[in-house]
Amino acid sequence: MFATPAQRKKWLEPLLDGKIRSAFAMTEPAVASSDATNITTSIRLDSDEYVIDGRKWFIPNAAHPNCQQFIVMGKTDRDAPAHRQQSMVLVPRDTPGVKIVRDITVIDHTAPEGHCEIEFKGVRVPRSNLLGEEGSGFALAQARLGPGRIHHCMRSVGAAELALELMIERAQARTAFGKKLYQYGSVGEWIAKSRIKIDQARLFVLKAAWMIDNVGAKEARQEIAMIKALVPTVHTAVCERAIQTFGAMGLSPDTPLADSWTWGRALKFADGPDEVHLQSIARKEIKARPYEPGHESPYLTPAV
Amino acid sequence: MFATPAQRKKWLEPLLDGKIRSAFAMTEPAVASSDATNITTSIRLDSDEYVIDGRKWFIPNAAHPNCQQFIVMGKTDRDAPAHRQQSMVLVPRDTPGVKIVRDITVIDHTAPEGHCEIEFKGVRVPRSNLLGEEGSGFALAQARLGPGRIHHCMRSVGAAELALELMIERAQARTAFGKKLYQYGSVGEWIAKSRIKIDQARLFVLKAAWMIDNVGAKEARQEIAMIKALVPTVHTAVCERAIQTFGAMGLSPDTPLADSWTWGRALKFADGPDEVHLQSIARKEIKARPYEPGHESPYLTPAV
Amino acid sequence: MFATPAQRKKWLEPLLDGKIRSAFAMTEPAVASSDATNITTSIRLDSDEYVIDGRKWFIPNAAHPNCQQFIVMGKTDRDAPAHRQQSMVLVPRDTPGVKIVRDITVIDHTAPEGHCEIEFKGVRVPRSNLLGEEGSGFALAQARLGPGRIHHCMRSVGAAELALELMIERAQARTAFGKKLYQYGSVGEWIAKSRIKIDQARLFVLKAAWMIDNVGAKEARQEIAMIKALVPTVHTAVCERAIQTFGAMGLSPDTPLADSWTWGRALKFADGPDEVHLQSIARKEIKARPYEPGHESPYLTPAV
Amino acid sequence: MFATPAQRKKWLEPLLDGKIRSAFAMTEPAVASSDATNITTSIRLDSDEYVIDGRKWFIPNAAHPNCQQFIVMGKTDRDAPAHRQQSMVLVPRDTPGVKIVRDITVIDHTAPEGHCEIEFKGVRVPRSNLLGEEGSGFALAQARLGPGRIHHCMRSVGAAELALELMIERAQARTAFGKKLYQYGSVGEWIAKSRIKIDQARLFVLKAAWMIDNVGAKEARQEIAMIKALVPTVHTAVCERAIQTFGAMGLSPDTPLADSWTWGRALKFADGPDEVHLQSIARKEIKARPYEPGHESPYLTPAV
Repeated sequence: MFATPAQRKKWLEPLLDGKIRSAFAMTEPAVASSDATNITTSIRLDSDEYVIDGRKWFIPNAAHPNCQQFIVMGKTDRDAPAHRQQSMVLVPRDTPGVKIVRDITVIDHTAPEGHCEIEFKGVRVPRSNLLGEEGSGFALAQARLGPGRIHHCMRSVGAAELALELMIERAQARTAFGKKLYQYGSVGEWIAKSRIKIDQARLFVLKAAWMIDNVGAKEARQEIAMIKALVPTVHTAVCERAIQTFGAMGLSPDTPLADSWTWGRALKFADGPDEVHLQSIARKEIKARPYEPGHESPYLTPAV
Repeated sequence: MFATPAQRKKWLEPLLDGKIRSAFAMTEPAVASSDATNITTSIRLDSDEYVIDGRKWFIPNAAHPNCQQFIVMGKTDRDAPAHRQQSMVLVPRDTPGVKIVRDITVIDHTAPEGHCEIEFKGVRVPRSNLLGEEGSGFALAQARLGPGRIHHCMRSVGAAELALELMIERAQARTAFGKKLYQYGSVGEWIAKSRIKIDQARLFVLKAAWMIDNVGAKEARQEIAMIKALVPTVHTAVCERAIQTFGAMGLSPDTPLADSWTWGRALKFADGPDEVHLQSIARKEIKARPYEPGHESPYLTPAV
Repeated sequence: MFATPAQRKKWLEPLLDGKIRSAFAMTEPAVASSDATNITTSIRLDSDEYVIDGRKWFIPNAAHPNCQQFIVMGKTDRDAPAHRQQSMVLVPRDTPGVKIVRDITVIDHTAPEGHCEIEFKGVRVPRSNLLGEEGSGFALAQARLGPGRIHHCMRSVGAAELALELMIERAQARTAFGKKLYQYGSVGEWIAKSRIKIDQARLFVLKAAWMIDNVGAKEARQEIAMIKALVPTVHTAVCERAIQTFGAMGLSPDTPLADSWTWGRALKFADGPDEVHLQSIARKEIKARPYEPGHESPYLTPAV
Repeated sequence: MFATPAQRKKWLEPLLDGKIRSAFAMTEPAVASSDATNITTSIRLDSDEYVIDGRKWFIPNAAHPNCQQFIVMGKTDRDAPAHRQQSMVLVPRDTPGVKIVRDITVIDHTAPEGHCEIEFKGVRVPRSNLLGEEGSGFALAQARLGPGRIHHCMRSVGAAELALELMIERAQARTAFGKKLYQYGSVGEWIAKSRIKIDQARLFVLKAAWMIDNVGAKEARQEIAMIKALVPTVHTAVCERAIQTFGAMGLSPDTPLADSWTWGRALKFADGPDEVHLQSIARKEIKARPYEPGHESPYLTPAV
């Protein structure tokens, strides 16, 4: 959406052909990156090159052998207004000064594509590697996050559905104290409540998707924030119950439940922690119903 | 749906014209009426009349001056199979032996239409007052409950929406410790979580309604059970937060919140307690995925 | 603790003898009174009299026939620092200008002693009716609230215990779908979880009481805040389950559960809403462990 | 407590000297082992030897190089009453037929001491390796579990305290959207609610410990069941909030939080799943207050 024709040809086409992978490098260890204005990585123009210095972490894909390019977010102008300080540049992986410090395990889990910590030290790229324009980094990030968030939610609904399916199977397969597990009231309630939560979440995600298609990601921002703040919690809650139904086996590698549970947990901050989404939902509700003294709801008996 | 032409002319038409009201009398003080097979009221055929003896309570509408007729559920045959023992008969309010014992307050609230306790003692009605056929009482009750349940849920969604609207107004109108209430993180989260819960619940109710219209109440049974087990909890949760936002005023008659909250609470057993719905949802999920040993999910590493 | 000998003789002695009652008038309809600095009632010195103008509500005891005196909190000096503006004066009920506007029902419940709304209009009392000194109102309120809060919690634990006792009885008395209610897993879990919550809450209240006795109410402030933010939630949660076990009868006047539940609900703001207590607990925890950069926990691997 | 002098000399003394370790092998993959009567491992007397056949898993310590002995629970008599079928035998690790199949990772975590799956195939040990007497296995397991459970809870309280300590540090160290994290209402509430939960849990564990010391583990059974059903949930809830406060770092190996969280999760079934404890607590409450028709609580208005 924002690349130049040359950038597209060089990076986007092999990406779409599946020949290379790309990694988006925003989160930093030193600051609360849920607030993107905190980003400290420096992107400094030096004649015709950008010089990048900073440290990023939890960068997905970066450990994959095909990952050949990073999109790095940093600050080109610390004196600009808060949301115009950031820019994004394209950094080939093999540029001198780029160092993958480690692949961070997430709850002892190492994904093949990795969640890497990366150091950028005096990294130089040509000026033409700028994505969009200087100062547009924050806006680019926002444009990317809507679709990214619903994609997380869609996978999360599917993962919850699988967890419920496994729970239902296990509850029929096992007997304790003379009854099948599903015949215990509490297990029955876990199944029913999981079904309710999943069906609700799926409908809600479908509505957000319909809105993205029909009125655009920007107009659907409230719906996207709502599903992002909701679905990971549904996902982990259903996994929790499924794990409890399996007993210790539920935490072993013999089921996909433990991985699914911890992945759902990680989603509670991926692309913004729940709390940030909740506050933005509340702000929009407040804006939609501004309070005017003297025009209180007719359902209230006015306090004197 | 089940009345004879004569019954319709006599009772249904003035009912639809709004000239009279009718009360459905099923729940009994002496037994757990969530299990309708527990009903103890006797309906005995004596030559050409049915003789009714029993006690009912929490009968809505019965205190309304226009309420002229009761539909009474009782047992015509205690030796029949469990779901064929019950029948329903039409009982005019002024029949001798009918006594409205009291109008029961619900959390100190007396609705104008009442929730009455009624005694039936040797009450005689003509045989032609039988609704449907003998032994069909349980089936009639089931046919009635689906649409009744979604109607409760629809009103409940609206009540929750009003509670949220009032909460949003109050959160802007009041200042504590130097900030508007909505500027407190927890109040902001109440607003956001309420919006999420209500929007989800509304979508889910709309889906159930669409199914009733398109595939019929019977096929929509799972969806109806799910909204009935869910929506009153959403309703009371939103009211709870709205009340807390208002402080003591939230429990006073100066807002509709306390009444709304307790009405939502009562809905957790109206037309069947949540627990009964949850168990029936679980049963249906189990039936839909019968477990066959040796055909475990391919996502499991089989235990040896 | 703060009265003069003359005040004691006139008011405290008949109070202790049970001859009269007293009402504490702080909460006001026009402002968020959880923040006592918001109080707007004016107490103005006019030669040798205080003149009181303002409106209070939810004043317990004020409707009782023996209630002959109000302790009114208001502002004597709006230019003083925030916590030195308030004073308390003793106002005999029959003073001209005092008007009980109404007895406010709380969730449709009218207690015999009442929760009144009271207007004070040009009410004059002698200067000697000042409690403590001018500007000490906030401090007096704080001194009173500690013991008041634990007293609420103690009664609340007892009320929860009664609700559990009734739930256990009902769960044995009733049969649904062929089983006693307590034989259903979910009812069993309600009983067990209620027992756990109550026993925990009781121990915690006893600890706070022990601290008040041994180190004083001031040193026990954190413990008092913790039980006040906790116990009403335990109380209402146990009542909720007991009500659900009773079905509709649980909301009727045939059990004490509905009244107990709504009284527990009201306690979530009596003497300060839960949210205010939670924030003060958090503040104290933060103060107890000040963060010093460079002295991070040895359990953390320092971020670079 | 149950070993013969010879068994003590051979196994217990080097155990207490820290020279060897021992592993308790009860849980089996093929059955719901929360119900110990399900155990299928066979322990058959063949002249003067016991022959053991079966498969166990999640056996802690078994991977430790010093672990030289297993206590294996199995069935010596399938025709005895349900709780007299089991026996325990001492099995040296190097006995032929003992095979450690694998060390099972728990949520991708491999503890140095392991959670092993072990196959016993025609394993022969002398008759004198029987612990206690034949048929006493279930009773021995019960005797062992009380102290084992409180030990889990004590460590769990400490782990929750550490998580809170780290959360408090992080909430002060990080800034987002212009405020320190602890200044956000929701983070403040996490801290306060965690403090309340931990202090309550600690008191409750101390009470159970006091009872074990003063009236014995058997009399303290209800208290032990209550803390076991409660504390792991407190532990995981506090870790959850601490992780959310840290963001992605909270799931990385740079803090102890992820390991602590998953260990707390595993405790929800270690030594019996929460659900089994809750049902046993409920049963004891019911027994303590048997319902007698006609002797209903004086707080109820009897239903007619």
